[in-house]
Amino acid sequence: MSEDYRPMWADLGLDLKAHDALLGVLGNAYQDIFLSQKERPEGMGYFDFVMSEVHGLRIKELLDEKAAGRKIVGCYCVFVPEELVLAANATLVGLCAGADFATDAVERLLPRNTCALIKSTFGFKLGKVCPYLESADMVVGENTCDGKKKAYETLDHLVDNLFVMDMPQAKSAQGKSLLKAEYYRFKSALEDLTGVAVTVQSLRQAIETVNAKRAAIHRLSALRKADPAPISGLDALLANQVFLYDNPARFTDAVNKICDELEVRVENKMGVSAARKPRILVSGCPQAVPNWKLPFIVERSGAVIVGEESCVGERGTRNLTDASGESVDEMMEAITDRYFKVDCAIFTPNPDRLAHIEEMAAAYKADGVIHYGLQFCQPYLMEAIPVEKALEEKNIPCLRIETDYSNEDAGQLKTRVEAFIEQLR
Amino acid sequence: MSEDYRPMWADLGLDLKAHDALLGVLGNAYQDIFLSQKERPEGMGYFDFVMSEVHGLRIKELLDEKAAGRKIVGCYCVFVPEELVLAANATLVGLCAGADFATDAVERLLPRNTCALIKSTFGFKLGKVCPYLESADMVVGENTCDGKKKAYETLDHLVDNLFVMDMPQAKSAQGKSLLKAEYYRFKSALEDLTGVAVTVQSLRQAIETVNAKRAAIHRLSALRKADPAPISGLDALLANQVFLYDNPARFTDAVNKICDELEVRVENKMGVSAARKPRILVSGCPQAVPNWKLPFIVERSGAVIVGEESCVGERGTRNLTDASGESVDEMMEAITDRYFKVDCAIFTPNPDRLAHIEEMAAAYKADGVIHYGLQFCQPYLMEAIPVEKALEEKNIPCLRIETDYSNEDAGQLKTRVEAFIEQLR
Repeated sequence: MSEDYRPMWADLGLDLKAHDALLGVLGNAYQDIFLSQKERPEGMGYFDFVMSEVHGLRIKELLDEKAAGRKIVGCYCVFVPEELVLAANATLVGLCAGADFATDAVERLLPRNTCALIKSTFGFKLGKVCPYLESADMVVGENTCDGKKKAYETLDHLVDNLFVMDMPQAKSAQGKSLLKAEYYRFKSALEDLTGVAVTVQSLRQAIETVNAKRAAIHRLSALRKADPAPISGLDALLANQVFLYDNPARFTDAVNKICDELEVRVENKMGVSAARKPRILVSGCPQAVPNWKLPFIVERSGAVIVGEESCVGERGTRNLTDASGESVDEMMEAITDRYFKVDCAIFTPNPDRLAHIEEMAAAYKADGVIHYGLQFCQPYLMEAIPVEKALEEKNIPCLRIETDYSNEDAGQLKTRVEAFIEQLR
Repeated sequence: MSEDYRPMWADLGLDLKAHDALLGVLGNAYQDIFLSQKERPEGMGYFDFVMSEVHGLRIKELLDEKAAGRKIVGCYCVFVPEELVLAANATLVGLCAGADFATDAVERLLPRNTCALIKSTFGFKLGKVCPYLESADMVVGENTCDGKKKAYETLDHLVDNLFVMDMPQAKSAQGKSLLKAEYYRFKSALEDLTGVAVTVQSLRQAIETVNAKRAAIHRLSALRKADPAPISGLDALLANQVFLYDNPARFTDAVNKICDELEVRVENKMGVSAARKPRILVSGCPQAVPNWKLPFIVERSGAVIVGEESCVGERGTRNLTDASGESVDEMMEAITDRYFKVDCAIFTPNPDRLAHIEEMAAAYKADGVIHYGLQFCQPYLMEAIPVEKALEEKNIPCLRIETDYSNEDAGQLKTRVEAFIEQLR
């Protein structure tokens, strides 16, 4: 880190010793997993810097914004519309949920059979190691899966200013109207928080800002269709992860710069490796920072990941929001339309997701699909079985993985992944 | 059984060999668990007969009803209003889900980490051993928990005529309006099935029929407040289980007859045992037939169960439906009001359930509460932790159990239950 941030972390109430340990592990993992890769695009230097300052400079920026009167909103899910947050003159950041922490304390509040993502949310809070969470003026939960919705009841006692949005379970007219009503309720809560009313102008500009960020990611994704792939899956995943908490305009520029570089690579048929590698599509649960276990194993086993059908990936970013509305309500409707399309496994039925996986497998010329399921994540683990069956009926090889954030199964995972990749050669 | 039902079962497409094995196990379990009890009320003879004919005479009755043109509707949940089914001139039966069956086949369709209740639903279908399911003209699912809602997507390929009702997740105005709209959709589906329009008269009569059944169970419950308890928890649970698929009027009579007998016992201070026994309230997941493991262990360990805060128990039966409406819509509203009060853990937040547990613990003079959680049932396992904490803050001892339908943990459960009961003496 470029500065001594310890006083800042202490002010936020972090447990400095535990936080040092976390940063130490994170730094080593980043070195081993990311910096050791060959043929990385130069533009990844930006993300290396972002990651090296993930709890430093970015937090300082947020605290500077707070000092200037701006509010910080933290969230755990892609159903929280960044458009509304920006339009109310606040900043949205995704909250830490990609590593085990303070497990003993967590399991006093949550059943052991809870998915790693939810446990991590609690672990970062109870262990006092997430400066994003501690900086947030509002924390937004959503009634997506059973695990999250029930966990928020307990999280409500651990954080101030938790705002929980209700969610539909079916893509019906009633479901859509519930989502729109909840987005209106969220807008009011934001306006109360910031004292800034959302206007046609501010909402349109916010939509355009978020769309620009998405468009940059779309450009990056499109370049990954090239064979050989011009960027590793790990690096592309990192961009998708940083999407969730970087400054939007700066992020958009950084991704577009990488794309400029990758376009030259594609033109020269240059890839991340000279040899032809099996191409993998990863589909399933979100992969929050620093949950890099699966892509690391896949890419060290001689394959390249060409796409993520995931919240941290195309499920979260594929759709733009229509900015053409001429009233706040028209834009609220456009926002609802946009998020209602997200094909999360919490919806029943959820045929769009399978269609999207098949579409991505074709578009990215994937040789096989790895379905990534977090243990005890019922919605995705349940969908995985019919998804695998449907893919195999179309002769798309599929490997179903069920794992958590520990490294205990790394050896076993590696064996299974290697065998799967071997069969794709 | 009093007749040879094998041709009937064969006609229903049951696997006769597997079904024989199931009935054999069931019969032995019933003998060991129920018939071996001492000081049983004579009125339990009715339920002994019902259970001995559970796949025999009751199925024959349903098939006779079908032959006479009446339709049979099967369901898995207390959110399915029997009032509507009866008003449309059909019969509602709860479907088998209390025992493991065909586990290998089930685990090809569902993740291993799925709760036993849902696996059992699939096992009875795949193993072809549930004559209720095979008799049903319509099977009703509901988007309650993640496990069920996603499992119905697969069940839809295994059964004909699956009707899935959407459910709210929060007790908001929007949630209630969704429930009412879904009940209207269900009413139309029933009317289409039976060709019988629901009228003010038929709906009022149906409400009264179901209320009478509930009132009989309330009378039975009230008698269990006496010390010593005049009936075992096992026998009372059995009545609550049979509630879900017996002929309503006959069931009401049978329960009232037991109550007449129990009133005399209470007057004479006669209990199921001479010695004073610790009184236990069981709270949590439903206990479907033949899932008698926990109450059997509790009562053989020297305690008596005095109440069930459960779908198969007071959560399912406590509220009556207002029959005073003067239009179908007024009664639909009353039905919605009644079911919207059910304090299932799928709702968030769900403070009414804790209040009800505390209320029951006081009313039934419980010495302690056993929270019964099915493994992988996220809503109840998540609620169990704050429930236990709240009870212990009020000095109500609480034991949290997490189990499934296997007998593998019976020894371990017995040890824990015995230790808990010991502490209550």
